[in-house]
Amino acid sequence: MLESLKEAVLAANLELQKSGLVIFTWGNVSAIDREKELVVIKPSGLPYQDLTMDKMVVVDLAGKIIEGNFKPSSDTATHLELYRGFKEIGGVAHTHSPRATSWAQAQKGIPCFGTTHADYFHQEIPCSRAMTPAEIKHNYELNTGKVILERFTQLNYLNTPGILVAGHGPFTWGKTPAEAVENSIVLEEIAGIALDTLRINPLASGISAVLMDKHFFRKHGAQAYYGQDCTPHK
Amino acid sequence: MLESLKEAVLAANLELQKSGLVIFTWGNVSAIDREKELVVIKPSGLPYQDLTMDKMVVVDLAGKIIEGNFKPSSDTATHLELYRGFKEIGGVAHTHSPRATSWAQAQKGIPCFGTTHADYFHQEIPCSRAMTPAEIKHNYELNTGKVILERFTQLNYLNTPGILVAGHGPFTWGKTPAEAVENSIVLEEIAGIALDTLRINPLASGISAVLMDKHFFRKHGAQAYYGQDCTPHK
Amino acid sequence: MLESLKEAVLAANLELQKSGLVIFTWGNVSAIDREKELVVIKPSGLPYQDLTMDKMVVVDLAGKIIEGNFKPSSDTATHLELYRGFKEIGGVAHTHSPRATSWAQAQKGIPCFGTTHADYFHQEIPCSRAMTPAEIKHNYELNTGKVILERFTQLNYLNTPGILVAGHGPFTWGKTPAEAVENSIVLEEIAGIALDTLRINPLASGISAVLMDKHFFRKHGAQAYYGQDCTPHK
Amino acid sequence: MLESLKEAVLAANLELQKSGLVIFTWGNVSAIDREKELVVIKPSGLPYQDLTMDKMVVVDLAGKIIEGNFKPSSDTATHLELYRGFKEIGGVAHTHSPRATSWAQAQKGIPCFGTTHADYFHQEIPCSRAMTPAEIKHNYELNTGKVILERFTQLNYLNTPGILVAGHGPFTWGKTPAEAVENSIVLEEIAGIALDTLRINPLASGISAVLMDKHFFRKHGAQAYYGQDCTPHK
Repeated sequence: MLESLKEAVLAANLELQKSGLVIFTWGNVSAIDREKELVVIKPSGLPYQDLTMDKMVVVDLAGKIIEGNFKPSSDTATHLELYRGFKEIGGVAHTHSPRATSWAQAQKGIPCFGTTHADYFHQEIPCSRAMTPAEIKHNYELNTGKVILERFTQLNYLNTPGILVAGHGPFTWGKTPAEAVENSIVLEEIAGIALDTLRINPLASGISAVLMDKHFFRKHGAQAYYGQDCTPHK
Repeated sequence: MLESLKEAVLAANLELQKSGLVIFTWGNVSAIDREKELVVIKPSGLPYQDLTMDKMVVVDLAGKIIEGNFKPSSDTATHLELYRGFKEIGGVAHTHSPRATSWAQAQKGIPCFGTTHADYFHQEIPCSRAMTPAEIKHNYELNTGKVILERFTQLNYLNTPGILVAGHGPFTWGKTPAEAVENSIVLEEIAGIALDTLRINPLASGISAVLMDKHFFRKHGAQAYYGQDCTPHK
Repeated sequence: MLESLKEAVLAANLELQKSGLVIFTWGNVSAIDREKELVVIKPSGLPYQDLTMDKMVVVDLAGKIIEGNFKPSSDTATHLELYRGFKEIGGVAHTHSPRATSWAQAQKGIPCFGTTHADYFHQEIPCSRAMTPAEIKHNYELNTGKVILERFTQLNYLNTPGILVAGHGPFTWGKTPAEAVENSIVLEEIAGIALDTLRINPLASGISAVLMDKHFFRKHGAQAYYGQDCTPHK
Repeated sequence: MLESLKEAVLAANLELQKSGLVIFTWGNVSAIDREKELVVIKPSGLPYQDLTMDKMVVVDLAGKIIEGNFKPSSDTATHLELYRGFKEIGGVAHTHSPRATSWAQAQKGIPCFGTTHADYFHQEIPCSRAMTPAEIKHNYELNTGKVILERFTQLNYLNTPGILVAGHGPFTWGKTPAEAVENSIVLEEIAGIALDTLRINPLASGISAVLMDKHFFRKHGAQAYYGQDCTPHK
């Protein structure tokens, strides 16, 4: 079942590794079939080189395993909470990519210092609040999803397709698992450039809202004019 | 038309990616035929691996598409303004290479801290001023070119073949598109070394004008003695 | 003798180089056969590309060469002291990997700033005390092992499988030589992320003990639920 | 003439590039035949991929071209001054490797922060003084050699096989051109680790003289015991 989605999830997981964002088993990507309300996700702890389509795990939105011979990623409950809360996303990626993780460990959002950032993320890339002992001890992975949703109460998750989980690392999403991975790669690049921006100018402030809008909306939404089809950036 | 120029522009765009300066579609290179007053430029948003000579776009200096089945780079108006203002250049390159972009985001020019810099850029690599809301909202890409030219009112664009656009990233140029790309690669390297120079010695000052002249002019201009032909460095 | 252990030690040494952790001959891995009380270790100063199984050296726990045509690693006495003191380890790795070494040179332990760290090391990665002139002048390599053991008097070496030797570099260990190398790779990654964490937020404090426990024990020990077999992370 | 020396010089120049220390033509290696008092050096400005044995240039110690169809490296006069002053060296290498160059641009010597450094360089890696306008304007490359020699008046050039030329970059040397290149690679690695050491601990001080001696002399000189032959490290 869901063969084409499994293929996309496998390819996206392999792209995570190929892009240099993850070592060992430090990342995972999933995708959802919105009609069937089923999620395909990487099995837990398996090396990327051993992944094949038939090792992908299918779960429903309550976390019940529908198909698969392996346990799903230990972060599955976080992915599911994101799919429940962000109704229009189709894929989720999680990594411990080093520079994004350093911002998460510093427990700071990444200010929009430039157009590279604004081409993909319309605002600061937010950092979630620290979790309480109770949230950590019970249903930790589910609660990780909940603090992400909480952080987005006032934010547009489509225009800001990623977050830094405090003390942990980045989660990103997109319309497809490939787009979720692309956003992980972009977030890592932005995180590194932002780090160096602060090194050169500790007082650097973000770019103006006007410039941020210009770059984001020339690539995304109805007025986009970047690329060949004048549709939102894929 | 302009087959050899298209070939050079294609090669230069591929070199941008091969050098590691760009990921995804984050860069573009163009070249001009000064006699015909026609510019060849990368199509907008196409992945580098899909680029071929026949996908290159030919535009005139007013931006009208003369040949090509694709939309030209969204930064075309910036390139054209540079060709109109800098009469002796033959190629322009634009990237979001990380360390040069971090200086652009910090909105600081790169001081000439050493001979690596002075071998290619005769002075500080300047940073443009921030653009006004009006400049951003209307004809943004054209105005990006205008603020670059404005910054060079008192500077020699041949001796300083590149700039950091504030909050955005580097543009470089040269007699050919290959030289424009070489200057992008050099600028990225210089930007990284300058970053670390300041880390070691926050009070580092530039090298003397005498040393800067020595290195620049042993490679460039009538008195050059670097390389095999005693002509300006290619 | 000990052919399968030699094979594992050779593979682990080659993995050190393949992972980019060592250049030239700047690292070594050993393993112990606990029943026979014999240790297999890399020969001293031989380039990795020249290593073969038959060049591995077998020594007893007193350092006497039992088999082999080459001198063992100059760090052998350190490895042996670790095997004598840490009764449950099966492999030891030593590198001068750059970011871990920078923490060792700064003579600072690496605080547990995030879950990437807590997935592998249950606490701060400690730094040993500086050695005395007498300890350096006589039996230096043995004394290097002794200051490591001294630092672990109050620590659990199984939950903190590595240390920074002050002014020198990291030593890591594990149940197998492959696991020792994995811990070296992880330590290098953690060291780099921690460095950047401090750059972004010089006041960054470690994550809570609750979160540290959660991540460490979901991968290690009787309650582990990460991976496919619910046994401690291999 | 000097075919085996040309082969060694060619190989050493190619190793410079292969190691990632140089881009474009930013480095050069030479070697001397002490009996014949002839030096083989890379031609000026030629790309590494075009280098062949027959393009190497032979000059005498006064700089006169003895054999070769190309101009020698523009830094030839610096190399020759080093051969005249440092009687026991056989090869010289020069790069603009980024992290060593950042120390040169900061005009700071690299303190001996750890054993990685002490394994190859017995003390601080020194930085030369800034050159005077007169030294720069006339016989610049020769004077670059002279300020290097001046800096070594009180230093042992065999135990400290390299220097940072202020505002410029590193020069290293060794008994052979291969050893000169090895020292360039090591210097770049040490420079990067030292940079990060200061980031973690701005008050970091060097290791003790006792530890420095221990590491340097276990690899070099009559008491060496590192490696297989108990002779000084090759």
